[in-house]
Amino acid sequence: MSGRLIGVGTGPGDPELLTLKAVKALGAADVVAHFAKRGNGSNARATVAAHMRADVVELPLLYPVTTEIAKSEPAYGEAISCFYEEAADAVEAHLAAGRTVAVLSEGDPLFYGSYMHLHVRLAGRYQTEVVAGVTAMSGCWSAVGLPIVQGDDVLSVLPGTLPETELRRRLGDAEACVIMKVGRNLAKIRRALQATGKLGDAIFVERGTMAAMTTMRLADKAGDEAAYFSIVLVPGWRDRP
Amino acid sequence: MSGRLIGVGTGPGDPELLTLKAVKALGAADVVAHFAKRGNGSNARATVAAHMRADVVELPLLYPVTTEIAKSEPAYGEAISCFYEEAADAVEAHLAAGRTVAVLSEGDPLFYGSYMHLHVRLAGRYQTEVVAGVTAMSGCWSAVGLPIVQGDDVLSVLPGTLPETELRRRLGDAEACVIMKVGRNLAKIRRALQATGKLGDAIFVERGTMAAMTTMRLADKAGDEAAYFSIVLVPGWRDRP
Repeated sequence: MSGRLIGVGTGPGDPELLTLKAVKALGAADVVAHFAKRGNGSNARATVAAHMRADVVELPLLYPVTTEIAKSEPAYGEAISCFYEEAADAVEAHLAAGRTVAVLSEGDPLFYGSYMHLHVRLAGRYQTEVVAGVTAMSGCWSAVGLPIVQGDDVLSVLPGTLPETELRRRLGDAEACVIMKVGRNLAKIRRALQATGKLGDAIFVERGTMAAMTTMRLADKAGDEAAYFSIVLVPGWRDRP
Repeated sequence: MSGRLIGVGTGPGDPELLTLKAVKALGAADVVAHFAKRGNGSNARATVAAHMRADVVELPLLYPVTTEIAKSEPAYGEAISCFYEEAADAVEAHLAAGRTVAVLSEGDPLFYGSYMHLHVRLAGRYQTEVVAGVTAMSGCWSAVGLPIVQGDDVLSVLPGTLPETELRRRLGDAEACVIMKVGRNLAKIRRALQATGKLGDAIFVERGTMAAMTTMRLADKAGDEAAYFSIVLVPGWRDRP
């Protein structure tokens, strides 16, 4: 009798943007696993707090402190790969004991989610279900009421971590766009938007859907400080009938 | 005392992928409006059936039969624009009477949703809220357990209605991609994927998350018939740690 793995999307942060299916999965889970940085709480865990079973076993999966190793160095890849192997082993121990394990994932599990690293290691060997979630980008454009794409519009989702030349090249050929992973990359993103004539249309959203949300035209934002939960939106739909 | 407009995302089709916020909006709505083609039921309406208030007023917004006019002709634009004006007027009559009107939208309201046409006409003049929904693409990649993007991956969302040369050009420069609005465009989409070396990685999903879902590698699919609710997914994340 082997266990069941459920990747649970917890949405963009507003607890009301959980799906009924996510709530049901939390009710069925013997174990709830969540990724976080050591010393920080898990945002996904905070989002689902009202739906945790009293008798649930919690399994925090804590990222190692890797800020002293550059991402481009092989040692970074080794450290992070080793962490995912250990996390998969910790989850698998519960699955092998026949338990149902829900792995929380901010937004949607298979859209830039940490859950993916467990999925590729375990999904072939245990009964697995992925509960889609509302993405951070949907949460953001809805919270600010910004129509993003319509009709024949193309949407480009660009990580702000891309090199500046690549970001500029992609923005130059884009219609609507969403820039994710803004955090420390805002100065670079601003330059790339300026160079491609898109800065005037760009909307900055920090902590979208959460109580502490702030939003403004990026051109009006003073300074390049941005929270990890920030997104830049450039709407399409020029040709409104 | 004026009314309240709520754009409600109903998700990809599985009623359990409704958000708690969508259910709450349906409980608060005096009027529920939904778009459909004349003679067809509304899919969004079917998805929320269990949450409709017994005393709710339903307002179907029925697209005119426009198949005899090519989309490229000015007469099409005029007919559709006229329809959206009338739909906005019908919703506004309820808002002006102080009612709360929920407008259903498959997937996410501001992501290719018909609700957008009402939003741009009414949102400035009435209290408005948009309830983000799980997109069809999230529903599809979750239902088939396909990791779509990770790390620095770029995601391109391409309407299958694009001209073939443009679709091929976009696919040629894409990493992960989602092709929406597959319907009658599958033969063209298949050729464009083949020309750009992506056909072997493409996954076809029809009626994703619904009871009648089917999925297969697009290369294995015989024929180019596809339901309106079809999507093609090309995953990214080549460089898995």
